[in-house]
Amino acid sequence: MERENRVSITVIRRLPKYYRYLGDLLRKGINRISSQELSKMTGFTASQIRQDLNNFGGFGQQGYGYNVEELHDQLGKILGLDRVYNTVIAGAGNLGQAVANYKGFQDAGFKILALFDKNPKLIGLKIRDIEIRDVDELEKYIKENNVEIGIITTPKESAQDVADIYSRSGIKGIWNFAPADLRVDDEMIVENVHLNESLFTLSYFLNNKSDYIRD
Amino acid sequence: MERENRVSITVIRRLPKYYRYLGDLLRKGINRISSQELSKMTGFTASQIRQDLNNFGGFGQQGYGYNVEELHDQLGKILGLDRVYNTVIAGAGNLGQAVANYKGFQDAGFKILALFDKNPKLIGLKIRDIEIRDVDELEKYIKENNVEIGIITTPKESAQDVADIYSRSGIKGIWNFAPADLRVDDEMIVENVHLNESLFTLSYFLNNKSDYIRD
Repeated sequence: MERENRVSITVIRRLPKYYRYLGDLLRKGINRISSQELSKMTGFTASQIRQDLNNFGGFGQQGYGYNVEELHDQLGKILGLDRVYNTVIAGAGNLGQAVANYKGFQDAGFKILALFDKNPKLIGLKIRDIEIRDVDELEKYIKENNVEIGIITTPKESAQDVADIYSRSGIKGIWNFAPADLRVDDEMIVENVHLNESLFTLSYFLNNKSDYIRD
Repeated sequence: MERENRVSITVIRRLPKYYRYLGDLLRKGINRISSQELSKMTGFTASQIRQDLNNFGGFGQQGYGYNVEELHDQLGKILGLDRVYNTVIAGAGNLGQAVANYKGFQDAGFKILALFDKNPKLIGLKIRDIEIRDVDELEKYIKENNVEIGIITTPKESAQDVADIYSRSGIKGIWNFAPADLRVDDEMIVENVHLNESLFTLSYFLNNKSDYIRD
């Protein structure tokens, strides 16, 4: 779908929330929801939801509300969840193994093909059916297997080296858990998960309760 | 420090970033940084940084820039990182174990005292020196050990039950990894880590590259 204007990041980050709520409704067998009900569930105004969705087409009908299954499917397509992404993980410690084991990602189409590490104690082990390989093989593996997404769960010191391998081997998007700013070219999509920053935000609020508003 | 106005969440979420950059500078032995240099490192304008920090006092000097160690220490205090928080983890699967093993949290003052689970295969195991206990003991343990922070790394179906235990046993802040909205009273601080939402944002951008701007 052609769009003239860039969709803002604040809108984009709400879409997976809508998707989650609609998935929960579907699982409960609810197939119709009014603007007000969806507003109540999500915490966003009916008007905000409508505006957000209008970036992507007309959804919902005046007086009817939204068809849950249809909207869920459409959002799934918009979020790119209607296909499979070959994915690898660099950094096969606890966090990397946790990500490899998270069944929800696999179900959503993110197919973890292999983990990579430099620690000889980990190389050769299997997480579910997925092998931990030597990071020396990473570049070749990515090229041979059309891997699109590279996850980084290494310590921060190794993150840039991994990002460099990802960049030159054709990875299109990086999901980065290391507390480091990656230097990559403009074409590369990078999504950071800043665990330290999240935890320190919690401790900030514990010490400054008057600043706390629940998201 | 008394403040009349609530500090906004967008400012608050930048503070851990500043803290991280200043920590990196300190480790490199750099103890002075100009506004421009800090702006370049962080990606925020010098003016934005100055405004953010002005919520908490006067930092930096015209013509001198910032004293890295002093600002790092002050930010550490503001973020509540100058003390220890007794912490427990509910959900001792891969993700819970990864969080328990993440040395950076311990170093920052978040002392994981125990993990809890209902799976008999996990109960009694140890992660580093930390025992996995029966979730039936969670409430009593929190009360007896003045636990302030409760982490949730259970599947989403169990998250609310854990939040309820946390609420009634005196936990002050929850760090929640489960893809669920927790029902808690207004006093409870909740910080969510939405892993699915982060990953689905990545896939959105892979499919809508023209909307991508690096944060």
